[in-house]
Amino acid sequence: MKGKLIGIGVGPGDPELLTLKAIKKIQQAQVIIAPCSRFEEDSVALNIVKEYIQEDTIINKMIFPMVHCQETLQKAWQQNVEEIVEKLERGQEVVFLTLGDSMIYSTYIYIMKSIKEAGYRVESVPGITSFCAVANHMNVSLAEGEEGLSIIPFKNNEVLLENALREGNNVVVLKPSHNPKALASLLEKYGLQESFVMCSKCGQEEEETTTDIKVLKESKIPYLSTVIIKNNKSRDRVKEVGSINGKKERGK
Amino acid sequence: MKGKLIGIGVGPGDPELLTLKAIKKIQQAQVIIAPCSRFEEDSVALNIVKEYIQEDTIINKMIFPMVHCQETLQKAWQQNVEEIVEKLERGQEVVFLTLGDSMIYSTYIYIMKSIKEAGYRVESVPGITSFCAVANHMNVSLAEGEEGLSIIPFKNNEVLLENALREGNNVVVLKPSHNPKALASLLEKYGLQESFVMCSKCGQEEEETTTDIKVLKESKIPYLSTVIIKNNKSRDRVKEVGSINGKKERGK
Repeated sequence: MKGKLIGIGVGPGDPELLTLKAIKKIQQAQVIIAPCSRFEEDSVALNIVKEYIQEDTIINKMIFPMVHCQETLQKAWQQNVEEIVEKLERGQEVVFLTLGDSMIYSTYIYIMKSIKEAGYRVESVPGITSFCAVANHMNVSLAEGEEGLSIIPFKNNEVLLENALREGNNVVVLKPSHNPKALASLLEKYGLQESFVMCSKCGQEEEETTTDIKVLKESKIPYLSTVIIKNNKSRDRVKEVGSINGKKERGK
Repeated sequence: MKGKLIGIGVGPGDPELLTLKAIKKIQQAQVIIAPCSRFEEDSVALNIVKEYIQEDTIINKMIFPMVHCQETLQKAWQQNVEEIVEKLERGQEVVFLTLGDSMIYSTYIYIMKSIKEAGYRVESVPGITSFCAVANHMNVSLAEGEEGLSIIPFKNNEVLLENALREGNNVVVLKPSHNPKALASLLEKYGLQESFVMCSKCGQEEEETTTDIKVLKESKIPYLSTVIIKNNKSRDRVKEVGSINGKKERGK
């Protein structure tokens, strides 16, 4: 019988946020694929699960290069798909690790589609998303009642973010480090400068949180940051974001 | 020392989707609060975690009535907050169970805010959201690359949904049973009638999935349903939603 590809969401970083299902699949895996951007680099996802990997499981680092050249990228990805297909043809169960949830902005999605199209079985296991982890860590709600919630990866798409803010949705901004000044301008434009909270390196030693728009305007923002914008006109926004439980607050 | 309120996201229903952290907190709990809408009713959240509850843990069913009368509601909720405050004053660690994630559309959010305002410590533990569980179960991605993702609880807010569709975001529609005909009309208006998938009673024996708009137009939709709309104009939508791995497909 041909093998199966199993995508596992390993959550945002804390091994305690692994699900029982993820652990079971990792313990049973014949082959574990740990994506990383360079071979000499550690796989963050692999570090999260390492204590559950059995001795006879084969660990396979797989390089997904972070380059702009489409040709290089496509070649590398295609090669990775072919490598997985080989294993599936040998009947192996192949576990593919992914940070956060398997179905939200993950490399696994592309791999899964190719493998599915090639006619193999796939199974995906959900994980705790980074934005849920951040919101819980800070005791700040993401959405209540009939509020909408938009998740926006902020890069070259200010229009997407502006539309979400205009519609009154609560918004999670992923990767605000790409353009924190543009984010600050939009917050001010919609009167939301006191209605957001940013958490950087959530749960790590160097964690920093802020509710101060000056930080967005004037500082360099760490890559691993998440912004939650409370955009419900009917609520007392400041009250909620003003009482977050951060370890260290910047700019205040 | 005064006690602490701990909100635990117990995920969508499958006990295997509990996190290690949730299990640890449940095992250590002195008091577990299990919300339900009537006393004679089972608490779904309690059923998910029951095998981890220790013998000496006090289980406290707490009624959050599903009524329209604001006065009755507020009285019941205030009484619940007071009951929790009493326990915290006695120095107890109080675990409050919540389906899915603690910070997304949960009863716990309101309780947490009141308890935090009253000056007590709170801690929140994230859980697997229903929409992540559904997407993984069906191997359908929620968002890729720079796509936006909107979560919309669909009740009396067609405008919210229409805006999200117009902006080109992928959309998760929660509670489509409230008005499946209106949902079908909007999908057709934006040319998305072949770009959605609905899963009802995900992971249960009676699970049903469909990609057929006729089902939305003509059938009664179960309460526990989730719709995922793939709204990226640049992708081949039908291909992806047409190859879901459902147990039983309706209307085809």
